Amino acid sequence: MMQKIEHIGIAVANAEKSIALFNAMFNTTPYKTESVESEHVNTIFYQVGPNKIELLEASSEESTIAKFIAKKGEGIHHIAFAVEDIYASLARLKADGFTLIHETPKKGADGKLIAFVHPKDTNGVLIELCMDNPNP
Amino acid sequence: MMQKIEHIGIAVANAEKSIALFNAMFNTTPYKTESVESEHVNTIFYQVGPNKIELLEASSEESTIAKFIAKKGEGIHHIAFAVEDIYASLARLKADGFTLIHETPKKGADGKLIAFVHPKDTNGVLIELCMDNPNP
Repeated sequence: MMQKIEHIGIAVANAEKSIALFNAMFNTTPYKTESVESEHVNTIFYQVGPNKIELLEASSEESTIAKFIAKKGEGIHHIAFAVEDIYASLARLKADGFTLIHETPKKGADGKLIAFVHPKDTNGVLIELCMDNPNP
Repeated sequence: MMQKIEHIGIAVANAEKSIALFNAMFNTTPYKTESVESEHVNTIFYQVGPNKIELLEASSEESTIAKFIAKKGEGIHHIAFAVEDIYASLARLKADGFTLIHETPKKGADGKLIAFVHPKDTNGVLIELCMDNPNP
Protein backbone atom coordinates (compact mmCIF):
# COMPACT_ATOMS: atom_id res chain seq x y z
CA MET A 1 0.00 0.00 0.00
CA MET A 2 2.81 2.46 0.85
CA GLN A 3 4.99 2.75 -2.21
CA LYS A 4 7.97 4.68 -0.89
CA ILE A 5 9.06 7.59 1.27
CA GLU A 6 7.84 10.41 -0.95
CA HIS A 7 9.60 13.06 1.09
CA ILE A 8 10.85 14.10 4.49
CA GLY A 9 9.74 17.54 5.66
CA ILE A 10 12.33 19.56 7.59
CA ALA A 11 11.33 22.69 9.52
CA VAL A 12 13.85 25.49 8.98
CA ALA A 13 13.98 28.96 10.51
CA ASN A 14 15.62 30.66 7.54
CA ALA A 15 15.19 29.21 4.07
CA GLU A 16 18.07 31.15 2.54
CA LYS A 17 20.60 29.82 5.05
CA SER A 18 19.16 26.31 4.86
CA ILE A 19 19.25 26.25 1.07
CA ALA A 20 22.96 27.11 1.17
CA LEU A 21 23.47 24.30 3.67
CA PHE A 22 21.50 21.63 1.83
CA ASN A 23 22.93 22.65 -1.55
CA ALA A 24 26.32 21.81 -0.04
CA MET A 25 25.03 18.63 1.60
CA PHE A 26 23.37 17.28 -1.55
CA ASN A 27 25.78 18.84 -4.02
CA THR A 28 22.83 20.12 -6.05
CA THR A 29 20.15 22.84 -6.01
CA PRO A 30 16.40 22.68 -5.30
CA TYR A 31 14.25 21.61 -8.24
CA LYS A 32 11.31 23.66 -7.02
CA THR A 33 10.26 26.31 -4.52
CA GLU A 34 6.61 26.92 -3.82
CA SER A 35 4.67 29.06 -1.34
CA VAL A 36 1.54 27.45 0.06
CA GLU A 37 -0.57 30.41 1.20
CA SER A 38 -3.21 28.32 2.94
CA GLU A 39 -0.52 26.71 5.13
CA HIS A 40 1.59 29.86 5.61
CA VAL A 41 4.72 28.04 4.45
CA ASN A 42 7.42 28.39 1.88
CA THR A 43 8.54 25.01 0.58
CA ILE A 44 11.83 24.11 -1.09
CA PHE A 45 12.25 20.70 -2.73
CA TYR A 46 15.35 18.62 -3.40
CA GLN A 47 15.32 15.39 -5.36
CA VAL A 48 17.44 12.56 -3.93
CA GLY A 49 17.01 9.59 -6.27
CA PRO A 50 13.42 8.35 -5.85
CA ASN A 51 12.88 10.55 -2.77
CA LYS A 52 12.58 14.22 -1.93
CA ILE A 53 13.56 16.50 0.91
CA GLU A 54 11.14 19.35 1.55
CA LEU A 55 12.39 22.33 3.54
CA LEU A 56 9.55 24.14 5.30
CA GLU A 57 9.87 27.79 6.31
CA ALA A 58 7.03 29.65 8.04
CA SER A 59 5.75 32.63 6.03
CA SER A 60 3.74 33.94 8.99
CA GLU A 61 3.53 33.34 12.72
CA GLU A 62 0.25 31.49 12.20
CA SER A 63 2.13 28.71 10.48
CA THR A 64 2.33 25.34 12.21
CA ILE A 65 6.02 25.44 11.24
CA ALA A 66 6.57 28.59 13.32
CA LYS A 67 4.88 26.88 16.26
CA PHE A 68 6.87 23.68 15.74
CA ILE A 69 10.20 25.54 15.73
CA ALA A 70 9.21 27.61 18.78
CA LYS A 71 8.44 24.38 20.66
CA LYS A 72 11.01 21.90 19.36
CA GLY A 73 13.57 23.83 17.34
CA GLU A 74 14.53 23.21 13.74
CA GLY A 75 14.56 19.64 12.51
CA ILE A 76 12.52 16.86 10.96
CA HIS A 77 8.84 17.75 10.93
CA HIS A 78 7.18 14.83 9.12
CA ILE A 79 7.61 11.79 6.88
CA ALA A 80 5.40 11.53 3.80
CA PHE A 81 4.65 8.17 2.23
CA ALA A 82 3.44 7.88 -1.35
CA VAL A 83 0.30 5.77 -1.60
CA GLU A 84 -1.54 4.56 -4.67
CA ASP A 85 -5.01 5.44 -3.39
CA ILE A 86 -5.08 7.95 -0.54
CA TYR A 87 -8.82 7.46 0.08
CA ALA A 88 -8.44 3.70 0.51
CA SER A 89 -5.33 4.16 2.68
CA LEU A 90 -7.08 6.62 5.00
CA ALA A 91 -10.06 4.30 5.33
CA ARG A 92 -7.79 1.36 6.18
CA LEU A 93 -5.80 3.31 8.77
CA LYS A 94 -8.97 4.64 10.38
CA ALA A 95 -10.38 1.10 10.55
CA ASP A 96 -7.11 0.00 12.18
CA GLY A 97 -7.56 2.60 14.93
CA PHE A 98 -5.22 5.36 13.82
CA THR A 99 -6.36 8.94 14.46
CA LEU A 100 -6.53 10.95 11.26
CA ILE A 101 -5.82 14.68 11.32
CA HIS A 102 -7.49 14.89 7.91
CA GLU A 103 -10.22 12.36 7.16
CA THR A 104 -10.46 13.82 3.67
CA PRO A 105 -7.33 14.65 1.66
CA LYS A 106 -6.52 18.27 0.91
CA LYS A 107 -4.35 19.95 -1.70
CA GLY A 108 -0.69 20.14 -0.71
CA ALA A 109 2.48 21.45 -2.34
CA ASP A 110 4.04 19.83 -5.40
CA GLY A 111 0.74 18.82 -7.03
CA LYS A 112 -0.26 16.36 -4.32
CA LEU A 113 -3.33 15.36 -2.38
CA ILE A 114 -2.24 14.95 1.23
CA ALA A 115 -3.52 13.92 4.66
CA PHE A 116 -1.83 13.56 8.04
CA VAL A 117 -2.07 10.86 10.71
CA HIS A 118 -1.92 12.03 14.32
CA PRO A 119 1.51 11.42 15.92
CA LYS A 120 -0.07 10.29 19.19
CA ASP A 121 -0.68 6.91 17.54
CA THR A 122 2.63 6.70 15.72
CA ASN A 123 5.43 6.93 18.28
CA GLY A 124 5.59 10.71 18.00
CA VAL A 125 6.21 10.61 14.25
CA LEU A 126 4.01 12.91 12.17
CA ILE A 127 3.11 10.85 9.09
CA GLU A 128 1.69 12.25 5.87
CA LEU A 129 0.13 10.20 3.11
CA CYS A 130 0.23 11.67 -0.36
CA MET A 131 -0.65 10.85 -3.94
CA ASP A 132 -0.54 12.81 -7.18
CA ASN A 133 -3.60 15.03 -7.37
CA PRO A 134 -5.64 13.95 -10.42
CA ASN A 135 -7.09 17.51 -10.52
CA PRO A 136 -4.23 19.79 -9.47
CA MET B 1 26.33 11.56 -4.85
CA MET B 2 23.42 10.72 -2.55
CA GLN B 3 21.46 7.96 -4.21
CA LYS B 4 18.32 7.83 -2.08
CA ILE B 5 16.99 7.90 1.46
CA GLU B 6 18.26 4.51 2.58
CA HIS B 7 16.27 4.59 5.81
CA ILE B 8 14.75 6.74 8.51
CA GLY B 9 15.65 5.78 12.07
CA ILE B 10 12.87 6.10 14.64
CA ALA B 11 13.62 5.94 18.38
CA VAL B 12 11.04 3.79 20.19
CA ALA B 13 10.69 3.05 23.88
CA ASN B 14 9.18 -0.41 23.49
CA ALA B 15 9.91 -2.41 20.35
CA GLU B 16 7.06 -4.87 20.87
CA LYS B 17 4.43 -2.14 21.03
CA SER B 18 5.99 -0.24 18.15
CA ILE B 19 6.16 -3.32 15.94
CA ALA B 20 2.41 -3.86 16.45
CA LEU B 21 1.84 -0.21 15.55
CA PHE B 22 4.04 -0.13 12.44
CA ASN B 23 2.81 -3.53 11.27
CA ALA B 24 -0.65 -1.93 11.19
CA MET B 25 0.65 1.28 9.60
CA PHE B 26 2.57 -0.47 6.82
CA ASN B 27 0.29 -3.47 6.54
CA THR B 28 3.30 -5.77 6.63
CA THR B 29 5.87 -7.18 9.05
CA PRO B 30 9.57 -6.39 9.59
CA TYR B 31 11.96 -8.10 7.18
CA LYS B 32 14.72 -8.16 9.76
CA THR B 33 15.51 -7.62 13.43
CA GLU B 34 19.08 -7.25 14.57
CA SER B 35 20.76 -6.38 17.86
CA VAL B 36 23.84 -4.19 17.55
CA GLU B 37 25.76 -4.87 20.77
CA SER B 38 28.35 -2.14 20.23
CA GLU B 39 25.57 0.47 19.98
CA HIS B 40 23.34 -1.03 22.68
CA VAL B 41 20.36 -1.05 20.33
CA ASN B 42 17.84 -3.47 18.96
CA THR B 43 16.92 -2.63 15.38
CA ILE B 44 13.79 -3.59 13.46
CA PHE B 45 13.61 -3.00 9.71
CA TYR B 46 10.65 -2.46 7.41
CA GLN B 47 10.92 -2.21 3.63
CA VAL B 48 8.80 0.49 1.99
CA GLY B 49 9.50 0.31 -1.74
CA PRO B 50 13.10 1.48 -2.27
CA ASN B 51 13.35 2.76 1.33
CA LYS B 52 13.45 1.36 4.83
CA ILE B 53 12.20 2.34 8.24
CA GLU B 54 14.47 1.33 11.12
CA LEU B 55 13.00 1.19 14.60
CA LEU B 56 15.64 1.70 17.27
CA GLU B 57 15.12 0.43 20.82
CA ALA B 58 17.76 0.88 23.52
CA SER B 59 19.07 -2.42 24.91
CA SER B 60 20.83 -0.66 27.81
CA GLU B 61 20.80 2.74 29.46
CA GLU B 62 24.17 3.50 27.88
CA SER B 63 22.51 3.59 24.48
CA THR B 64 22.31 6.94 22.70
CA ILE B 65 18.69 5.96 21.96
CA ALA B 66 17.89 5.85 25.69
CA LYS B 67 19.44 9.30 26.07
CA PHE B 68 17.60 10.63 23.01
CA ILE B 69 14.22 9.43 24.31
CA ALA B 70 14.93 10.79 27.81
CA LYS B 71 15.67 14.20 26.29
CA LYS B 72 13.28 14.47 23.35
CA GLY B 73 10.80 11.62 23.59
CA GLU B 74 10.12 8.98 20.99
CA GLY B 75 10.30 10.01 17.34
CA ILE B 76 12.53 10.40 14.33
CA HIS B 77 16.18 10.00 15.29
CA HIS B 78 18.05 10.25 11.99
CA ILE B 79 17.90 10.14 8.20
CA ALA B 80 20.32 7.85 6.38
CA PHE B 81 21.29 8.50 2.78
CA ALA B 82 22.76 5.78 0.59
CA VAL B 83 25.98 6.89 -1.05
CA GLU B 84 28.06 5.13 -3.67
CA ASP B 85 31.41 5.80 -1.97
CA ILE B 86 31.19 6.70 1.70
CA TYR B 87 34.90 7.61 1.90
CA ALA B 88 34.61 10.13 -0.96
CA SER B 89 31.36 11.53 0.44
CA LEU B 90 32.86 12.08 3.89
CA ALA B 91 35.91 13.78 2.38
CA ARG B 92 33.68 16.08 0.31
CA LEU B 93 31.45 17.01 3.24
CA LYS B 94 34.45 17.68 5.46
CA ALA B 95 35.97 19.90 2.77
CA ASP B 96 32.63 21.75 2.57
CA GLY B 97 32.81 22.54 6.28
CA PHE B 98 30.46 19.95 7.75
CA THR B 99 31.41 18.48 11.13
CA LEU B 100 31.73 14.70 10.97
CA ILE B 101 30.88 12.60 14.01
CA HIS B 102 32.77 9.74 12.35
CA GLU B 103 35.63 10.68 10.06
CA THR B 104 36.07 6.99 9.26
CA PRO B 105 33.06 4.76 8.59
CA LYS B 106 32.18 2.04 11.06
CA LYS B 107 30.11 -1.14 10.83
CA GLY B 108 26.38 -0.54 11.28
CA ALA B 109 23.30 -2.73 11.23
CA ASP B 110 21.99 -4.38 8.06
CA GLY B 111 25.43 -5.03 6.52
CA LYS B 112 26.35 -1.37 6.09
CA LEU B 113 29.31 0.89 6.60
CA ILE B 114 28.01 4.05 8.23
CA ALA B 115 29.09 7.49 9.43
CA PHE B 116 27.18 10.41 10.96
CA VAL B 117 27.33 14.14 10.27
CA HIS B 118 26.89 16.44 13.27
CA PRO B 119 23.38 17.97 13.46
CA LYS B 120 24.75 21.36 14.49
CA ASP B 121 25.60 21.98 10.82
CA THR B 122 22.43 20.46 9.39
CA ASN B 123 19.46 22.32 10.86
CA GLY B 124 19.19 19.94 13.77
CA VAL B 125 18.84 16.90 11.51
CA LEU B 126 21.08 13.96 12.37
CA ILE B 127 22.28 12.64 9.00
CA GLU B 128 23.87 9.26 8.40
CA LEU B 129 25.68 8.22 5.26
CA CYS B 130 25.75 4.53 4.48
CA MET B 131 26.90 2.09 1.85
CA ASP B 132 26.95 -1.68 1.60
CA ASN B 133 29.92 -3.00 3.53
CA PRO B 134 32.21 -4.82 1.06
CA ASN B 135 33.54 -6.89 4.02
CA PRO B 136 30.51 -7.44 6.27
